[in-house]
Amino acid sequence: MNCLLVIFGGTGDLANRKLYPAIYNLYASGNLPAGFAVVSVGRKEKSTETFRAETENNIKKFSRQNFDDSKNLQDMLSRFYYFNLNFTDQAGYINLQSFLSKLDEAYKTSGNRIYYLAVSPENFLPIVDGLHKADMVAPAKEPISRVVIEKPFGSDYGSSYKLNKILGNVFGEQDIYRIDHYLGKEMLQNIMAIRFANMVFEPLWDKRYIDHVQITSSETVGIETRGAYYEKSGAIRDMMQNHMLQLLMLTAMDAPLRIDAQSIRKEKLKILKAIRPISKNSADSLVIRGQYGEGLSSDKAMPAYRQEVGVNPQSDTETYVAMRIDIDTKRWDGVPFYLRTGKRMPYKTTEIAVVFKRALLPEGLEKHSVINANTLIIKVQPQEAVMIWLNGKKPGTINEIVPISMGFCQNCSVGEISPDAYERLLQDCLRGDSALFAGWDEVEYSWKFIDRIIESWSEKVPDFPNYAAVTWGPEAADELLLRDGRQWNEYIWRCFNYEVVRCVNANI
Amino acid sequence: MNCLLVIFGGTGDLANRKLYPAIYNLYASGNLPAGFAVVSVGRKEKSTETFRAETENNIKKFSRQNFDDSKNLQDMLSRFYYFNLNFTDQAGYINLQSFLSKLDEAYKTSGNRIYYLAVSPENFLPIVDGLHKADMVAPAKEPISRVVIEKPFGSDYGSSYKLNKILGNVFGEQDIYRIDHYLGKEMLQNIMAIRFANMVFEPLWDKRYIDHVQITSSETVGIETRGAYYEKSGAIRDMMQNHMLQLLMLTAMDAPLRIDAQSIRKEKLKILKAIRPISKNSADSLVIRGQYGEGLSSDKAMPAYRQEVGVNPQSDTETYVAMRIDIDTKRWDGVPFYLRTGKRMPYKTTEIAVVFKRALLPEGLEKHSVINANTLIIKVQPQEAVMIWLNGKKPGTINEIVPISMGFCQNCSVGEISPDAYERLLQDCLRGDSALFAGWDEVEYSWKFIDRIIESWSEKVPDFPNYAAVTWGPEAADELLLRDGRQWNEYIWRCFNYEVVRCVNANI
Repeated sequence: MNCLLVIFGGTGDLANRKLYPAIYNLYASGNLPAGFAVVSVGRKEKSTETFRAETENNIKKFSRQNFDDSKNLQDMLSRFYYFNLNFTDQAGYINLQSFLSKLDEAYKTSGNRIYYLAVSPENFLPIVDGLHKADMVAPAKEPISRVVIEKPFGSDYGSSYKLNKILGNVFGEQDIYRIDHYLGKEMLQNIMAIRFANMVFEPLWDKRYIDHVQITSSETVGIETRGAYYEKSGAIRDMMQNHMLQLLMLTAMDAPLRIDAQSIRKEKLKILKAIRPISKNSADSLVIRGQYGEGLSSDKAMPAYRQEVGVNPQSDTETYVAMRIDIDTKRWDGVPFYLRTGKRMPYKTTEIAVVFKRALLPEGLEKHSVINANTLIIKVQPQEAVMIWLNGKKPGTINEIVPISMGFCQNCSVGEISPDAYERLLQDCLRGDSALFAGWDEVEYSWKFIDRIIESWSEKVPDFPNYAAVTWGPEAADELLLRDGRQWNEYIWRCFNYEVVRCVNANI
Repeated sequence: MNCLLVIFGGTGDLANRKLYPAIYNLYASGNLPAGFAVVSVGRKEKSTETFRAETENNIKKFSRQNFDDSKNLQDMLSRFYYFNLNFTDQAGYINLQSFLSKLDEAYKTSGNRIYYLAVSPENFLPIVDGLHKADMVAPAKEPISRVVIEKPFGSDYGSSYKLNKILGNVFGEQDIYRIDHYLGKEMLQNIMAIRFANMVFEPLWDKRYIDHVQITSSETVGIETRGAYYEKSGAIRDMMQNHMLQLLMLTAMDAPLRIDAQSIRKEKLKILKAIRPISKNSADSLVIRGQYGEGLSSDKAMPAYRQEVGVNPQSDTETYVAMRIDIDTKRWDGVPFYLRTGKRMPYKTTEIAVVFKRALLPEGLEKHSVINANTLIIKVQPQEAVMIWLNGKKPGTINEIVPISMGFCQNCSVGEISPDAYERLLQDCLRGDSALFAGWDEVEYSWKFIDRIIESWSEKVPDFPNYAAVTWGPEAADELLLRDGRQWNEYIWRCFNYEVVRCVNANI
């Protein structure tokens, strides 16, 4: 579909680091339509020439491409335009519309537009309002007007509802693309392929064979320059409400009838609705929050969260959350999902560990053995890998059982081969496929679940900081599993921090 | 248990290449009893000193040990003795008995003996008879008298029955150790560990999830110096009746209650009895025999079987057999087991491939994809490995599915680490554990199954040679699977011929 991509906040970090390199990669691989142009809309005074020169530099800096021959890049940049707009100036939208109309004609886009809101949340309302009043959103099916919204989609159920109402007054639900960039990641999409394209997993995928599931997203970095944002958000809003619950839904959902937005969202929503709400009384035992204190990374002193730039020195914002989630469906009855996310952890990883029950051994096999639970690990980033821990006979022994591991890693040895999440998501938006974007129902129910937890927190002052930087979070998070007779799969990182292939035969 | 190991044929190839190095390794690793001596019984005139010197050389030549410090070896050789005997000379056995009695006393063995018959089958009767008449086999439980018999255990049901009767008249069934050295191999024992110590396999191990099973044992060599033996045996007696059917039984059997000889044999026997007999009418379509003709190996001309030393130039002996076996149990109803074994194949491998059914995909996932069947490969030799073929999403595509593989290899990178099969089997015999030896019932039913096939062959002159050396056997063997809509998993060898770890990420 020929169209214009109009990026509000087109001179910002997200656009420069992610969107323009993604657009270039799509262009270079022939995945953009013939009639296509990009209009960056920003508050800064800037000529299109300056914008193109800056964008060229940014693409060269942030793209995974090799630029020996950059003719392609010049070709593409000739389709890039800059338009100066104060987002609250209604008259400016009239001018923007006439600017875009001329491009519509030049690029034969039939008036198809994608409005990408790469701006902070307070600008959502004036922009949507401006577009609406300037008659820039087509009400019917053709031409197409889509809007792409970056996270955060609200900061609780109330604010997300308001935001959605504003969007919904102007755009149809099918034209609203709520970005959760985790959904654009290769291995996250691979969860569906792994679950549904293999005969050996789906029959095992329930309470009869699975003991529990662990979902981890850990970062080594602190909050960097995002102090002001993070103080209001914290780990539960920044990671749990969106990315982590999406990982949970994809892991737990039933097979969709078709791989399309409607079918997948329907299955994901069934899971979200079946999550047992965490009451005020149970929040203390089921949800663990943490905030990092000072610590050491290779003998280098790391600051505490309260010492970071833009952070209140008495801040009660959490940089770590772990929780136990129960899903009240026939499939998952009695199978806990343990989720955790944190900053300043020892390793960076996003992964799902499906821990199977222990096999009932014939007598005589177990004599000298420690029987480990079979574990399937789907590693989302930074390595994109699948790993399985099995049991085998220790060579040279009579019947001693030892753990053996095997793995497949698609980016360990060759470096980055997967497209960036934004490439996939932009392409899907152009194709009109919203399967990898969050539906409103998902946003609604995930906020409702998270809001109750945040509410319970507001009644107690946490004893922060409660974990040292470069450790695996507060002790209470270990207790969360220990009291269920389980533990976090730390040993996996020891392996995955190196190349998977080197690890496969390692004696861990 | 202190004991004497009396090896008939103790100057032969098997003893020198396999038994003495195995005994040395057991000795060096402290796995021999304190009271232990070896007596080699042979027809050649030889002093114990000469025998020790020759054995020292052989052990150094054939052992996997490093002989920087060979004090151990000298210590052990001081327990080695030679005794000259004509196997048919009854008076000689009286002398042997008095020789052994002195050693019994010197090594405090309480008269415990293991008689190892490493001789050709025609010597079994005179030796057993000689032992019996010289009163060298203890009838009661103590002292212990065990006998170890090398294959072939008969050449059909009739001859094996006679042989068993001869043994059974003198030894109790629990004291007869019928060696199938495949059962001593690490990965063969690992089949039980893999099946029963993992939660992720046993629930899938039946007709609901498995499409079929392939068992392959291929050799690159021809018949070497064994022409005379092989002419009478052929591939079906040499490999199918014993090794291949053992592999099938271990793959197909139910979980034994305990890992002991009685329980395992009981489960194996249930499978053997449930194999659908191959009638004369069906043998033509279910069993394919082949004999290699000339061929090329890296441009080097290879002789045809009929040109090998000791082979009849018009020989109809088969060097290749493939067959479809159906097991009429609830678990395996409708799941064919395809077995094949051959000489002068392109690669050496012994492996079991469990091919699962194809997953039913959600619409939209399969659009551009070739969905491969999940396959679990247990590789017995020369690599000792487990490998799984799965499906995943091809990076960078919308929903394209591609095969991915992962493996665990316990001897690929470090070279040989597993004990030789004979080490394990000798040790088990010393411990009185016959779980890894073939029971009489197994021998009986496997011969009865094989005899019918051989009988049907006798009625037709085969059109030999029907495959070129260094190819994968006759075309009819491909047809055997093709007409069922299946094919041999050749691509697996392309991978396993190299290191597994290198292969895991290979794009095959």
